[in-house]
Amino acid sequence: MDAQTFRRHGHELVDWIAEYLEHSEKYPVLARVKPGDLTAALPSHAPEDPEPFEAIMADFERVLVPGLTHWNHPGFLAYFAITASAPGVLADFLSSALNQQAMLWRTSPAATELEAVSLAWLRRLMGLPDSFEGVIYDTASVATMHALVAAREASIADVRKRGLPGRSDVPPVCVYGSNQAHSALDKGAIAIGLGHDSVRKIEVDEAYRMRADALADAIADDRRAGRLPIAVVATVGTTSTTSVDPVPAIADICERERLWLHVDAAYAGVAAMVPSRRHILDGAERADSFVVNPHKWLFTPFDLSAFYCRRMDVVRAAFALTPEFLKTAEGERSRNLMDTGLQLGRRFRALKLWMILRSFGARAIREHLVEHMRLATLFESWISAHADFELLAPVPFSVVCFRWRPAGRSMSEGELDAANERLINAVNDTGEVFLSHTRLRGRLALRVAIGHLHTEERHVRRAWDLLQEYAGVGRRA
Amino acid sequence: MDAQTFRRHGHELVDWIAEYLEHSEKYPVLARVKPGDLTAALPSHAPEDPEPFEAIMADFERVLVPGLTHWNHPGFLAYFAITASAPGVLADFLSSALNQQAMLWRTSPAATELEAVSLAWLRRLMGLPDSFEGVIYDTASVATMHALVAAREASIADVRKRGLPGRSDVPPVCVYGSNQAHSALDKGAIAIGLGHDSVRKIEVDEAYRMRADALADAIADDRRAGRLPIAVVATVGTTSTTSVDPVPAIADICERERLWLHVDAAYAGVAAMVPSRRHILDGAERADSFVVNPHKWLFTPFDLSAFYCRRMDVVRAAFALTPEFLKTAEGERSRNLMDTGLQLGRRFRALKLWMILRSFGARAIREHLVEHMRLATLFESWISAHADFELLAPVPFSVVCFRWRPAGRSMSEGELDAANERLINAVNDTGEVFLSHTRLRGRLALRVAIGHLHTEERHVRRAWDLLQEYAGVGRRA
Repeated sequence: MDAQTFRRHGHELVDWIAEYLEHSEKYPVLARVKPGDLTAALPSHAPEDPEPFEAIMADFERVLVPGLTHWNHPGFLAYFAITASAPGVLADFLSSALNQQAMLWRTSPAATELEAVSLAWLRRLMGLPDSFEGVIYDTASVATMHALVAAREASIADVRKRGLPGRSDVPPVCVYGSNQAHSALDKGAIAIGLGHDSVRKIEVDEAYRMRADALADAIADDRRAGRLPIAVVATVGTTSTTSVDPVPAIADICERERLWLHVDAAYAGVAAMVPSRRHILDGAERADSFVVNPHKWLFTPFDLSAFYCRRMDVVRAAFALTPEFLKTAEGERSRNLMDTGLQLGRRFRALKLWMILRSFGARAIREHLVEHMRLATLFESWISAHADFELLAPVPFSVVCFRWRPAGRSMSEGELDAANERLINAVNDTGEVFLSHTRLRGRLALRVAIGHLHTEERHVRRAWDLLQEYAGVGRRA
Repeated sequence: MDAQTFRRHGHELVDWIAEYLEHSEKYPVLARVKPGDLTAALPSHAPEDPEPFEAIMADFERVLVPGLTHWNHPGFLAYFAITASAPGVLADFLSSALNQQAMLWRTSPAATELEAVSLAWLRRLMGLPDSFEGVIYDTASVATMHALVAAREASIADVRKRGLPGRSDVPPVCVYGSNQAHSALDKGAIAIGLGHDSVRKIEVDEAYRMRADALADAIADDRRAGRLPIAVVATVGTTSTTSVDPVPAIADICERERLWLHVDAAYAGVAAMVPSRRHILDGAERADSFVVNPHKWLFTPFDLSAFYCRRMDVVRAAFALTPEFLKTAEGERSRNLMDTGLQLGRRFRALKLWMILRSFGARAIREHLVEHMRLATLFESWISAHADFELLAPVPFSVVCFRWRPAGRSMSEGELDAANERLINAVNDTGEVFLSHTRLRGRLALRVAIGHLHTEERHVRRAWDLLQEYAGVGRRA
């Protein structure tokens, strides 16, 4: 594709994307295709001859667009709602064109240094101290895995060299999180060879927060049994209910027990930018590592996970390994990002974080977060005031967990689960909004998650109207 | 940023990028800043107030552009040269705007199914059989780690559940690669808890190919010592010299010994599209897993690593774990990509692979690869014909390893290393080309790697002219 053609299609694409970002409401939120539909509509072999970009875009619109679930739809209220904001999309476009590979400082001084600068900006906005060094990974799953590797490195002699198998000096290892912790803890522990049995799921209190006393008991039990506790993952904003673990109490335990404390604030960490929520990171300054995902609630196109560590030397001790073909004169004087992780190559992700923080400015970001929390509180008030709905968890941020439970009717838990499943399916089938679910104390809970930049009160009201309309009905007659 | 503003800046950015992609030669390839220069030029805090996109772009040009190493410069002949091709950049732009999260089929049917379709296209172009199922990861390091986890899963009873520590039934584990294998093998083995000692670096022959007899001996030695061999990584296109391990002989050994065979064809795999190089994947059809990186030599903006596996059920057995909030009705009937890896979330990367394959067409891709190999052969012929230069490795693809060694002068290896280091620094300091180095049998080797879409004969000739000009001189007077 020559420059002229690139310009033409680039301009067309800008218009397509502008239209898409502005009018994503014209699509059903949740894709309506069936498994296999798209595959059947696409050829089984790549073409021999070049095809014009117009033809490719036409197929994109005809075949792929119906298969999109519109994460950029303001009625997207499922999982954690995310946003590809306009400055983020532009920055990512530029990043793709620059194709920087910041494995070494010299292979992209700009990406290497901007990563440190933009992560420092974000860290200061959240009120975390400068003792945390940052690095960008793709996802919180990868960040948590690195935290667990660092914990292992800090706890088991010579583990980088000698590994875990066949060692009589290494007992079974334990890592801890609440029973609401993200599956990244499980997957990370499995991946790095600790085994799923190593993961201790600690009981939570009535508000789904880890019980520090139960954590202390579990650690003591494991020590008595000859097992080796190495790390605790405390969550600030769990995935089901966005509950906040008592980080100060957990940090006390970790200090006493000399355990690596990793704080998973993937979703909620950015809320610490808001004065009324600053306290959510109390204690996090004592963590060994911390993760927050700008691609969740900071209007950043996927992927960008910010990992902060007070002991990055331990991460480097685990992962630094420079083959001959990557040794450089700057090696000793500068930071090479490949030393802080499994991956050598990395996209120039810092560019979008930098452009988003500058383009929005901190004040506007805080205002958006406050508004999302206001909308969640509003939705919560509707639920609480309605006789036929019940709230299933507190609402610390912008996610509400609830269910339909009609007053004055006796229904078993099984019947309630089934009725709520019918309800969410009916609401989602409208295409106007998309809610997801979770399970809390065995009950099916519906979730409304507000986080898209363009979600307004009318979208939340519409979700509420639809819920009332379909409650107990299943489908509109 | 409203739609109108997005449009305006989007169009400006298209023009900037078009200019950049067309005229990247106006920049020095290797950035000329010093460590810390960019950091010093940027504020230490994010702004409170929004800043106009013009101001951000102005700072981008003023501060960041001088800190870019131009991977998109046709004189970039270092490491493996890569390309952000025009259709790939456009596709990535669209992907950022769509912000798809294909963790579950339902969260993006389009991204889920297009991933399978486009990976099947690529697989067929390379001549790999349909028994390989594909999944896209970010990097080959992550792909190799998943291969090692799968090997561990297949070899050690209950390892997902029970892990490795504290087990008397699990002896020290061994994994094998040549001494030219990528550091992803080392980092992967360290990450998953096998320990660096588990990595056996097998001797290579005169052409830097793994010696199958030495592999068989090493496995036998380890078995005799009570250790547990689990996997072999064979490389098709090693990072230093692009040598090709004897995959058929290695596959024989793996079958006999029941070891997981992972073929790392990150760079060279795509060359199997070319009839004259089809044989490089002989034996790969017997591998358990295989990785090729379209972001290396297939003109795809970083990141996109294609992982193929004949036993994806083993990868799923290691990694599938569906928390309640992600259980869906389609779960049983459709493929959820989060089950095949550590990460839940994933960019819509398949879109760029699909658009690149269609926009180029297979024939043109083959022609580009053939041309790159012709240029490498040409460069090799100049080296071979010159009395003061020597070739240090065969040239199977598009990378040439060589050094300056003046005829008729007696220089120690140390003096030659120092002279070649001065030579490459002098050549790189011109800003016209960027070469990298490696070390082969203890000697410093210079590398010319041809892989950028727009690298022409004149760029390679210029590199050769500069090498001759500066050879033995150090710096131009």
